[in-house]
Amino acid sequence: MKIITFEGIEGVGKSTQIQLLNNYLNEKGYKTEILREPGSTATGEQIREILLNTPIDLSSESELLLMFAARAQLIKEKLLDSDKDIVLFDRFYDASVAYQGYGRGLSLEAIFNLIELTNCPIPNITFLLDIDVEEGFRRKSNDLKDRIESAGNDFFERVRNGYIEISKKNKERVKVLDATIKIEELHNEIINITNKIL
Amino acid sequence: MKIITFEGIEGVGKSTQIQLLNNYLNEKGYKTEILREPGSTATGEQIREILLNTPIDLSSESELLLMFAARAQLIKEKLLDSDKDIVLFDRFYDASVAYQGYGRGLSLEAIFNLIELTNCPIPNITFLLDIDVEEGFRRKSNDLKDRIESAGNDFFERVRNGYIEISKKNKERVKVLDATIKIEELHNEIINITNKIL
Repeated sequence: MKIITFEGIEGVGKSTQIQLLNNYLNEKGYKTEILREPGSTATGEQIREILLNTPIDLSSESELLLMFAARAQLIKEKLLDSDKDIVLFDRFYDASVAYQGYGRGLSLEAIFNLIELTNCPIPNITFLLDIDVEEGFRRKSNDLKDRIESAGNDFFERVRNGYIEISKKNKERVKVLDATIKIEELHNEIINITNKIL
Repeated sequence: MKIITFEGIEGVGKSTQIQLLNNYLNEKGYKTEILREPGSTATGEQIREILLNTPIDLSSESELLLMFAARAQLIKEKLLDSDKDIVLFDRFYDASVAYQGYGRGLSLEAIFNLIELTNCPIPNITFLLDIDVEEGFRRKSNDLKDRIESAGNDFFERVRNGYIEISKKNKERVKVLDATIKIEELHNEIINITNKIL
């Protein structure tokens, strides 16, 4: 089984590109599954509800631990013994490093400890869809902003920069793509890179 | 603010002793609060529901992380800026070491990392109510057994031994008491020890 993850801040078009790649892979005969975090398991969906609709400010540590609790369960239920050829992730553990580490300022070491504790498998490819924060928000303007998205522009600048740092430390795995180019053009870049590991 | 925690396996009579100590402290004029884990915050109660009523086997890692997610929120909402004189805990972080570490076999180092990440304050006193596992279960026979309690006797033997190990490493803080003596007698021992820190 191969793992392909999509990362990036709000409004980069992850969902669209995942769906296009998924269709492409299915047409080529591969069995695939799209996973989103937190979620994709009953426990994960319950945790998602807590994260998005908590009645009082959630502590950063609690947010981080809930993300990894959902992830641990996802790994157990969906990755171990998976019968899929390729699993596509709408964000995976890099997002915790970018959002909770670089964004909220939690200890990167603590986050790497959690990645180790939960036995996160390393993706075969990570597509980092990069976009200017303002431009990303402009694209999302018709969407409901949830708790996380209401954290402000400075926060998302730190997250975007965090993602760039992650890509520098994982040059082989993380492919940084310009998310402002045409959808079809971006899809073709993604296909070309994906085909190299199939 | 002082923190007093009660630890032990099922059936040791923690709830009874906490209530008795709480009444005693209130009569002496101290402002107190009893906290239970996971719970005591809106987020914690939601997490408690996941832990006790999960539809599929929860991974040990997920269980551990949910416990600490609830704990981080509890520390934020209930301990920082508390106006109480004494907070009484029906289990605190030692329980994670005993249950998830010694009981489920998760890395003790990972658990200590989580204790550090969530800035758990060290209790002023920890009462470890010790009892033979079979005897503890006999006392609980009329109660509903939840998911955790259905884990079996071997598991609880490891937990009990884990608690003993914790007490050996924290001799000043952790007071091991025989939970089979009379309720009033045990209460008096607890009062005598508590009075020394008031």
